[in-house]
Amino acid sequence: MEQALRVNKDRLWSSLMEHARIGGTADGGINREALTPEDGAGRDLFAAWCRDLGMEVAVDALGNMFATYAGTDDSLLSVAMGSHLDTQPCGGKFDGVLGVLAGLEVVRALHDAGIRTKRPLTIINWTSEEGSRFVPSMAASGVYSDIFTMDEAQGWQDREGIGFIEALREIGYEGDEPVGQRKFDAYLELHIEQGPVLERNGILVGVVTGAQAMSFNNVSIIGREAHAGTTPMNMRLDPVAAFTRIAAACYEKADATEDARFTIGLIETTPASHSTIPHRLNFTLDLRHPKASVLAELIATYEAAADRERARGYQIAREEFGASPELVFDARCIDAVRQAVRDCGYPSMELVSGAGHDAVYVTHVCPTAMIFTPCKGGVSHNPAESITPEEAEAGANVLLQAAVRLANA
Amino acid sequence: MEQALRVNKDRLWSSLMEHARIGGTADGGINREALTPEDGAGRDLFAAWCRDLGMEVAVDALGNMFATYAGTDDSLLSVAMGSHLDTQPCGGKFDGVLGVLAGLEVVRALHDAGIRTKRPLTIINWTSEEGSRFVPSMAASGVYSDIFTMDEAQGWQDREGIGFIEALREIGYEGDEPVGQRKFDAYLELHIEQGPVLERNGILVGVVTGAQAMSFNNVSIIGREAHAGTTPMNMRLDPVAAFTRIAAACYEKADATEDARFTIGLIETTPASHSTIPHRLNFTLDLRHPKASVLAELIATYEAAADRERARGYQIAREEFGASPELVFDARCIDAVRQAVRDCGYPSMELVSGAGHDAVYVTHVCPTAMIFTPCKGGVSHNPAESITPEEAEAGANVLLQAAVRLANA
Repeated sequence: MEQALRVNKDRLWSSLMEHARIGGTADGGINREALTPEDGAGRDLFAAWCRDLGMEVAVDALGNMFATYAGTDDSLLSVAMGSHLDTQPCGGKFDGVLGVLAGLEVVRALHDAGIRTKRPLTIINWTSEEGSRFVPSMAASGVYSDIFTMDEAQGWQDREGIGFIEALREIGYEGDEPVGQRKFDAYLELHIEQGPVLERNGILVGVVTGAQAMSFNNVSIIGREAHAGTTPMNMRLDPVAAFTRIAAACYEKADATEDARFTIGLIETTPASHSTIPHRLNFTLDLRHPKASVLAELIATYEAAADRERARGYQIAREEFGASPELVFDARCIDAVRQAVRDCGYPSMELVSGAGHDAVYVTHVCPTAMIFTPCKGGVSHNPAESITPEEAEAGANVLLQAAVRLANA
Repeated sequence: MEQALRVNKDRLWSSLMEHARIGGTADGGINREALTPEDGAGRDLFAAWCRDLGMEVAVDALGNMFATYAGTDDSLLSVAMGSHLDTQPCGGKFDGVLGVLAGLEVVRALHDAGIRTKRPLTIINWTSEEGSRFVPSMAASGVYSDIFTMDEAQGWQDREGIGFIEALREIGYEGDEPVGQRKFDAYLELHIEQGPVLERNGILVGVVTGAQAMSFNNVSIIGREAHAGTTPMNMRLDPVAAFTRIAAACYEKADATEDARFTIGLIETTPASHSTIPHRLNFTLDLRHPKASVLAELIATYEAAADRERARGYQIAREEFGASPELVFDARCIDAVRQAVRDCGYPSMELVSGAGHDAVYVTHVCPTAMIFTPCKGGVSHNPAESITPEEAEAGANVLLQAAVRLANA
């Protein structure tokens, strides 16, 4: 019977739209940064909806919310579904919210049908995923997953010096439960892709098998400052010329490497004058690949190009300021998602997450997988973020089927 | 007799060093920006030295100073020598000052020898050449040469809103003489090269035959902002990648084109985040060549590269914010400098000015040529700017011989 069960598309969509009024902006976006009054109101609405279904809502010391729908054997660990309700200051209606409210819709559908799974089901709202008001991103799921400590969390402040815990108290969401104490049998996160791959391929559901290995770097190239008018080309040590050659080599390698991501997001020259060959050029190098071994090849391509410039007389330094290992989600959870997609009959493909998500941390302490649905043009973190009710429905149906499968196993 | 006449190296050097105390900084540089009290003190010292030689010192309405050493026939137009006494805020001891004080040393040498030329000789200090406190550069020689108008000059202000004329009054250098009224038979400007060519070639004196054609541009490339982690390489419209290809094509052309100068001095991306493929990249394009026709080829190379990127979907716009035509100095003045170099027996070469100088404007209204001497490492606009007493002497001897030749013709 549960295999034929489907979510209510219209109810899911109208809940998404009703929730989107909280922090909604004139341009159709959402400004509901973590631990603001809007975040508090968004949490209150979600909790009220859960309580309407008879769910118990618990809150831990960092405001992570756990709304539990009892199973037939509550001695077993829950199967969890969730994501986050906070947004970027100029965010959209679906990033994060979809995963939480789809979890709610799963429970509503079960509740309507009078179905209880063997294991309980828990919907999670992780606190401060976006990292816009408080750095780091994926903050409270990070503490839950032993990536950060409670001591670190005590020190988190926004730009105005307001502490994370202080702000949590202010909105009434500092709970008693120690962070990380509550364990789960499995965790499933539905999220919009935040990229163009599903849409371009006409695919409704992505089975997310892991997350990319990443390396974030600052690179500086030091040449020799000189006058643009008086210095012949062959007497220059121009860091922009060196940069051009290094970037060209890296783009060539990345373009030829399946699933590679190579991004130079920031470039700055010193001095920044049209008539002066710069002394120095700084740039960022953001490298990602599902396989750590291929990421290492990309880095080696950069290093070989940098060495060629060093031989010409440039001083080049690379500082890695962030890195993330290759992540593979739990085989049992991935299989549950695969089977759910098959049960629902949706066109699907397997892919690897290119963005950070709570699931990327939670997988360290709990069996985890993710489900992606398309978003228009791959756009997110933007008021123009857009999905269709059918896409939301498909994601929620896969979440329903996968969660029920895991909870009844 | 005049052909054997030489300047006094030690006197020239000690005048340079004495003058360098005014605005001298702890690092050996000079901070004597236009129309500051230091500029006033530098002018006073120069005027006092001129009056010691019985010269008449006139000042025009923009503070240009004209110190005249009478000739044997004062009904004839003067032969002028000069440059500027103002410096960059972190400038050196020789940029500009050398040309003025070498003119003074020429007159001192003639005065010592009891020689009068047929035409009078005039030493000029042009006001506000550097363009650091007041924009534009070569300001008062520009008005003298009909490049700018007095109306424009009335509007010039520094960053604090102090007017050019107001500052001129403040230091007591607003004269009565209308700017441009005083005419000259010829104008010679000795200046440090501000580039590495003479030094690298072991050459003591450069015969400057003209100035490069120049084109200064702001270019913007608009691509499509996207997430660095989720956007495959082949779905990107990355303005940094387009920039890299355009820059590579331009460098290749410039490196293969004799006497070309191609400089990208400023690059900026929007947004400037390591994890976002930028929406937009802006850069400056500074192109120079002695021949306008070859400059046009360099621009065409850029445009062809930009067109290839437009075909890929990028929006690219180039705005030329400054340009200067190919300039050829006066044949009679160049010949006088050539002959002077030969008379002195110095190793010399002919070259074209890559930097802006007062002479580049004055040549529009008066027969003009320039003389370059080496500077260490090609460095200027820097406290490390350095020349030797022998280099200063050589430049001043060529100035002496060329001026006397013109003034006796």
